[in-house]
Amino acid sequence: MTKTMKAVVKQDKARGAVLKEVPVPSCGAQDVLIKVRATSICGTDVHIYEWDEWSASRVKPPYIFGHEFSGEVVETGSLVKSVQVGDHVSAETHIVCGRCPQCMSGNAHICEKTEIIGVDRDGCFAEYVVLPEENIWQNEKSLPWDKASIQEPMGNAVHTVLAGETAGKTAAVIGCGPIGLMACAVAKAAGAAEVFAIDLNPYRLGLAQSQGADFTINPLEQDPVHYIKKMTGGRGVDIVCEMSGHPVAMNQGFKMATNGGRISILSLPVRPVEIDITNDIVFKGLTVQGITGRKMFQTWQQTAGLLRSGKMDAASIITHRFPLEDFEKGFDLMLQGKCGKVVLHP
Amino acid sequence: MTKTMKAVVKQDKARGAVLKEVPVPSCGAQDVLIKVRATSICGTDVHIYEWDEWSASRVKPPYIFGHEFSGEVVETGSLVKSVQVGDHVSAETHIVCGRCPQCMSGNAHICEKTEIIGVDRDGCFAEYVVLPEENIWQNEKSLPWDKASIQEPMGNAVHTVLAGETAGKTAAVIGCGPIGLMACAVAKAAGAAEVFAIDLNPYRLGLAQSQGADFTINPLEQDPVHYIKKMTGGRGVDIVCEMSGHPVAMNQGFKMATNGGRISILSLPVRPVEIDITNDIVFKGLTVQGITGRKMFQTWQQTAGLLRSGKMDAASIITHRFPLEDFEKGFDLMLQGKCGKVVLHP
Amino acid sequence: MTKTMKAVVKQDKARGAVLKEVPVPSCGAQDVLIKVRATSICGTDVHIYEWDEWSASRVKPPYIFGHEFSGEVVETGSLVKSVQVGDHVSAETHIVCGRCPQCMSGNAHICEKTEIIGVDRDGCFAEYVVLPEENIWQNEKSLPWDKASIQEPMGNAVHTVLAGETAGKTAAVIGCGPIGLMACAVAKAAGAAEVFAIDLNPYRLGLAQSQGADFTINPLEQDPVHYIKKMTGGRGVDIVCEMSGHPVAMNQGFKMATNGGRISILSLPVRPVEIDITNDIVFKGLTVQGITGRKMFQTWQQTAGLLRSGKMDAASIITHRFPLEDFEKGFDLMLQGKCGKVVLHP
Amino acid sequence: MTKTMKAVVKQDKARGAVLKEVPVPSCGAQDVLIKVRATSICGTDVHIYEWDEWSASRVKPPYIFGHEFSGEVVETGSLVKSVQVGDHVSAETHIVCGRCPQCMSGNAHICEKTEIIGVDRDGCFAEYVVLPEENIWQNEKSLPWDKASIQEPMGNAVHTVLAGETAGKTAAVIGCGPIGLMACAVAKAAGAAEVFAIDLNPYRLGLAQSQGADFTINPLEQDPVHYIKKMTGGRGVDIVCEMSGHPVAMNQGFKMATNGGRISILSLPVRPVEIDITNDIVFKGLTVQGITGRKMFQTWQQTAGLLRSGKMDAASIITHRFPLEDFEKGFDLMLQGKCGKVVLHP
Repeated sequence: MTKTMKAVVKQDKARGAVLKEVPVPSCGAQDVLIKVRATSICGTDVHIYEWDEWSASRVKPPYIFGHEFSGEVVETGSLVKSVQVGDHVSAETHIVCGRCPQCMSGNAHICEKTEIIGVDRDGCFAEYVVLPEENIWQNEKSLPWDKASIQEPMGNAVHTVLAGETAGKTAAVIGCGPIGLMACAVAKAAGAAEVFAIDLNPYRLGLAQSQGADFTINPLEQDPVHYIKKMTGGRGVDIVCEMSGHPVAMNQGFKMATNGGRISILSLPVRPVEIDITNDIVFKGLTVQGITGRKMFQTWQQTAGLLRSGKMDAASIITHRFPLEDFEKGFDLMLQGKCGKVVLHP
Repeated sequence: MTKTMKAVVKQDKARGAVLKEVPVPSCGAQDVLIKVRATSICGTDVHIYEWDEWSASRVKPPYIFGHEFSGEVVETGSLVKSVQVGDHVSAETHIVCGRCPQCMSGNAHICEKTEIIGVDRDGCFAEYVVLPEENIWQNEKSLPWDKASIQEPMGNAVHTVLAGETAGKTAAVIGCGPIGLMACAVAKAAGAAEVFAIDLNPYRLGLAQSQGADFTINPLEQDPVHYIKKMTGGRGVDIVCEMSGHPVAMNQGFKMATNGGRISILSLPVRPVEIDITNDIVFKGLTVQGITGRKMFQTWQQTAGLLRSGKMDAASIITHRFPLEDFEKGFDLMLQGKCGKVVLHP
Repeated sequence: MTKTMKAVVKQDKARGAVLKEVPVPSCGAQDVLIKVRATSICGTDVHIYEWDEWSASRVKPPYIFGHEFSGEVVETGSLVKSVQVGDHVSAETHIVCGRCPQCMSGNAHICEKTEIIGVDRDGCFAEYVVLPEENIWQNEKSLPWDKASIQEPMGNAVHTVLAGETAGKTAAVIGCGPIGLMACAVAKAAGAAEVFAIDLNPYRLGLAQSQGADFTINPLEQDPVHYIKKMTGGRGVDIVCEMSGHPVAMNQGFKMATNGGRISILSLPVRPVEIDITNDIVFKGLTVQGITGRKMFQTWQQTAGLLRSGKMDAASIITHRFPLEDFEKGFDLMLQGKCGKVVLHP
Repeated sequence: MTKTMKAVVKQDKARGAVLKEVPVPSCGAQDVLIKVRATSICGTDVHIYEWDEWSASRVKPPYIFGHEFSGEVVETGSLVKSVQVGDHVSAETHIVCGRCPQCMSGNAHICEKTEIIGVDRDGCFAEYVVLPEENIWQNEKSLPWDKASIQEPMGNAVHTVLAGETAGKTAAVIGCGPIGLMACAVAKAAGAAEVFAIDLNPYRLGLAQSQGADFTINPLEQDPVHYIKKMTGGRGVDIVCEMSGHPVAMNQGFKMATNGGRISILSLPVRPVEIDITNDIVFKGLTVQGITGRKMFQTWQQTAGLLRSGKMDAASIITHRFPLEDFEKGFDLMLQGKCGKVVLHP
């Protein structure tokens, strides 16, 4: 008799999701089966929930979504060596080929054959999830489940902020969704001189301040480029973390960067963006970086280290917690932008 | 009685230039006066000669243009310590403030207060030119004048190509004007596995081949992205040197780069370019670098070192030599794209 | 009539120093004259005061020593452009040639012709000091004089700690003199996961803790290598900052570094040290960095930025303040190791 | 009936080795079985053959030694995905754990649990060798067997030379055994301005010259530090590749490096070496790098790319070829230093 579990399933090619009983996944020879203890909602999950153009083109219902989690190992495959039953773990959500030129040069996060849990295969909005051994990240047992769960998105923030030198530099974070908020906290924890947080949502700007942003800017109220130039003696900022995906905001990002600065882009604009290459990139000697996923596993090491540093309060980014059954409350909050990070407990 | 000299003067706010007698510039306390022995024509000089939109907005006739040269020191100011009469020299053409945050952090090439010789003040299409001591680059006396003259544009190529690792990597050079040609030679001299040269001009593609390009692509004949993907096992190239400024070519550049690759842009597109940030930068984990001028003076050190390495034949890029009086022949060739580098001898 | 000023003069080739009236230095055309408002005592000053072997071989009494300071500009030379009377300033203490290959490639801190103020020419233990314009570092007027004064030694700590990635990494600081103490603070401000401070002096270990060290180790009580291995799951630390100069401690430093780690050495062992190159450098893939001075002026930019970040309390490192006249009290404390940083006010 | 094969076996804990028939190794589920087509002799093999102190402490006869090779895949395990029968391959010889912090941060070459083929388990001086899939390096079928075989030691040279910028820089290679010779070729192929090769053996210096060294120095005839300083205008070299392991030569290496230079050490001195840390590392701002193995697999990618670049003639380093049966001839030549690379054909 197959064991069953509760899971949030994307059932149909339409808005919404359902909670239902499904079989517990089976654990292959190179796999690890994990009892999920906390799982957090990502913006990507909201896109899937809403069934936008991107998700319609990418995901194949019915399947379990969700990809940020922490949990306890309950079973390991016969070939697994580095993970034991009882271990507290999270996981890198990109399952990669391991043998392409990118994977073979320390750039597995941009493997061309990446498969993502909760997107391309069953995810973790469930009581159990199964993953290959090589995706497992070991957590210290002292790390609370909810904090452990948000290491994956925090890794995106860490990857973006630490894509160049940060200590003693000025930084702007454009877009203060959960990852933008974390980027504020990461930049300060890594010694940024000043952090400017930019968003249209006053609630999110308030959270940015509590995450350490020194200045918050609402573009509805003042021009971010003008304000930042004024506050930096005309120089602009050394680092721009682009997390909004909005073409106007992105162009402001290029203009607020100082000569020789960098703009690290984690966002995914829905269509091509016009960029003034000559004035905003070439003459400025700017560096533009595309940021995707987390470096495997340098970013995880940095993230865990920053959590241990005592220089950031990761838990404060979690504004709401619900039992898995109440997942719809979480999605509603995310859609309204009235939350930091939302954690579900199966 | 003021000494006079021959000079090519941009006399009027209109197409053309004239050869005339003008006073030899005077040498200030921190300056060096140089007898010009070779001076080469840059694409920027052609813009000024042609009087395009950019030059109409920037330069102030009448003045002497030209900025690439080599020569012999004939006088030094009273505060000059590191240069002697008789030294063979070239010069960095960016005169910078020395005290802005960029200048004070090893990034003087992107000083916001840069003044360029031959653009913002008198240049070197003349028998003599004067420059601040701190712009002087000492040449070995064994280096021929014409080779010494083209170190400045070669520095642009070196700055672009060596903006990241090159040895053993695959590279594409888009746009085979003189600097693009040099980029082919530099990439090979620095150990690039394969260099793909792209241009619409068959004459220039021929020169690219003689500069070491392993493959040449004429986009009128075949799709560069498709061809490069085919020749690299579907991967694309590690390095793209964008030297065309053309929006279509630039977008091809983004698409021919492999995941995790870099695109180093030296060109100056005349208007904003639409870029598919999401697919061509973020998902690819690409790095885009704006390249301007030469690092002062790391690029000069690298350029001189590459010339000494014996791994590139810099002289072969010089296809034409004229006395200064025949400058119009040089400009004609440049306008027709029927030359590599053109050197004038005052 | 020459104006005079109070100064602490190294009068004789022997232990000690004297306070006396001397002429105010004159300000050359490229110089800046500064009224000193705070000046702090460096370990180097203690060596000169004590007249050890090194100072006997290097310095030429009588002269004014001291090199860490802040002050107000009271006169500028005729060629000075970037500094005005009334500016609050500190200064880089290395006066460099500006034209050697190191100076010309962003490495002026290792110029072979460096002259150091307070060592090779008159310093700042005085009411006034004169410096070339290009050595001036502009302070914000809101920065208190004493904090501004200690930016120079803090720059040594910043240069050492930030010589590689720090955020989320584990670090050990060997030797908790004032710069070692600052290194603890800098490492934490830059996001180090854990900092281990090592010294034989319990008073200094107490200060290390107040500067943010997570663990303190007295080698008289426990083996630092064993302790660090135990606390890092057998790995060792990512970063070792060697500031003791002691051969035994230095070798422990090599052994406490994890594979692939770095050891950044600011100390100056008095004689050659035996290193197990094979096991402690090659097999470990370690990087060893010699650190001297401050990068000009990236380190100053980082230091000022870290002071602004709010992530370190620079003032707390200053344990004692005296009027210049009481300089001997300061030297006594330094000799006893019973202080953090000592600041003198002329 | 077990298939058998010829193999060179280290039979006893004593000098020498024997050719004998042994069983063909069996191929596990994650393994690849390879028919060896060329295998080259490494200095490590000579140590094992000679039975020196190190090998007595490390290897466990009887076993097959040898680790550099190329060959053709004849069998793949059931879980192998990226390798097919018929593929031409070589292999990384470090078998690593994949899950330690080093392995998980792109530094598998310094995994603390490394097992080396031909040292800790059976090697490739045989007709067949078996390796885990993840160690396989795919060769282009156009690459000759002997050139393919020496990619492993060439990777050591590449790892050493390319551990920092090389194009346009000056380099010294201390110790011209086969890897030192390759380092000369790699440095020139990567655009080094000048390469100085240093060895006591005139035959090897001759080979260095044919590999591209611009200058050769025999320390029995002239002081390498003095000579290099003279030839570099007093500066010294930017890059020192230490491949001799000799304490005197190593100290010369430190002294011939320019301020801000790097010394990349691949050699394994048999006992600790006295280093003048203060003058040769700290004041110079030197970087010292321990180099071990090859970065997995960036170094292999660079090596293959350099072979394709046409800028080095890898085959010319192979001075002798023998059938496997004549392995003793190869060892004799290696012991006499009368060879470049020796390749055996099973």
